Amino acid sequence: MTYCVGILVREGLVMLGDTRTNAGLDNIATFRKLTVLEEPGERVIMLATAGNLSISQSVMTLLTEGIETEAGMRKTLMDVESMFEAAGLVGEAIRRVYGTYGEALQQQSMSFDVTFLIGGQIKDRRLRLFQVYAAGNFIEATQDTPYFQIGEHKYGKPILDRSISYEVELLDALKLALISMDSTLRSNLSVGLPVDVAACRRDELKAAVSYRIAPDEPYFRDLRERWSKALRQAHLAIPRPPWIE
Amino acid sequence: MTYCVGILVREGLVMLGDTRTNAGLDNIATFRKLTVLEEPGERVIMLATAGNLSISQSVMTLLTEGIETEAGMRKTLMDVESMFEAAGLVGEAIRRVYGTYGEALQQQSMSFDVTFLIGGQIKDRRLRLFQVYAAGNFIEATQDTPYFQIGEHKYGKPILDRSISYEVELLDALKLALISMDSTLRSNLSVGLPVDVAACRRDELKAAVSYRIAPDEPYFRDLRERWSKALRQAHLAIPRPPWIE
Repeated sequence: MTYCVGILVREGLVMLGDTRTNAGLDNIATFRKLTVLEEPGERVIMLATAGNLSISQSVMTLLTEGIETEAGMRKTLMDVESMFEAAGLVGEAIRRVYGTYGEALQQQSMSFDVTFLIGGQIKDRRLRLFQVYAAGNFIEATQDTPYFQIGEHKYGKPILDRSISYEVELLDALKLALISMDSTLRSNLSVGLPVDVAACRRDELKAAVSYRIAPDEPYFRDLRERWSKALRQAHLAIPRPPWIE
Repeated sequence: MTYCVGILVREGLVMLGDTRTNAGLDNIATFRKLTVLEEPGERVIMLATAGNLSISQSVMTLLTEGIETEAGMRKTLMDVESMFEAAGLVGEAIRRVYGTYGEALQQQSMSFDVTFLIGGQIKDRRLRLFQVYAAGNFIEATQDTPYFQIGEHKYGKPILDRSISYEVELLDALKLALISMDSTLRSNLSVGLPVDVAACRRDELKAAVSYRIAPDEPYFRDLRERWSKALRQAHLAIPRPPWIE
């Protein structure tokens, strides 16, 4: 399993991804699922992925080495001119991988399971966040619904549903994403540390952070402890129900 | 969908159930899923159910009208001598309903989907909590794992994972169950108010509360508001990450 989340706020964009993969409970490994592509001053693009690792790795390779165009050129995410084109290129790469492996996966009764988040900004274009599905189609985050989750999304959703809005500050959005990740880490063993974090501020065209949180990282450990303690205090502070003897 | 939770603590037992059923998003109704059977001073038994409504209603009818025994008698949950026997009777009722409808459901490509929570105390026997599966087999809550959830369990699990232990006071367990229900109500439209609440104190052999929370119930509305506010304050109080520019 996997948990990745992308949050678009007025101030910028945050993306988080865990690193645990598993082929059964007895076969667990660590693979990066969050990638930052950067050409400071020109573009910053973040990708997160969930689903079948062989599919997502093939898609990532196509996106970085280039997809052959009709003109015989190779187009990568460093070549696209807008985030809309970038999301389309992810979709195109997914369809190419489906073209190669789709039928064989079906023969093995494996589903073609892959989802991407792609967000970022290119030159003077808008900062945008997209979720790309297995058919290569995609949706965009809006001010009404400014975040997307992929993978094991349920455990970490309540805190986002309660607290995220487009007007939340970037660093608060990052803290909320970390709290959401913490809830997921606690409840689903197939989501695991390290956790990769990336964020950028609108119009800066570079990553404000691209960081790996290791299992013993002091800030995240402190955040988890503070959060647990605050929740305990919060429920203790709620009055007792009047309708019980 | 459904969300029910049962929590066994040293002081007693809490059970909560929502009331929304649906046959598709466009066909929603209200049905009680939490039932309290009581003979004060002798027994208090609480049942909660998730899954196919026609199956769970048939099981409940068998349990209250009686399952025919080999001796030609009818045995109900008011006749059993222990909670272990009660859980076994639920299992037996489920298997009887499977005997009647199992094959026909299969012919309609419907799964035989039903789960029960049953908890309570009979005379001088122990207060116990069980989860009964579709095959009639069951597991019991322990001091290590003192709660069970059935139905849509993921949204409401993080708060329980963080805060519930066997030593939590009964009224705090009840508040935590309500917070867990609130998270689920917010994130899954197929779980809905009213919410039924039941609790009993160990060795009192009667319900301490058996109450329906309507959509406009003031205590639950206040709890939801206080909780949201406390979470907002809690994440704002966490320091900002040191590894971002």
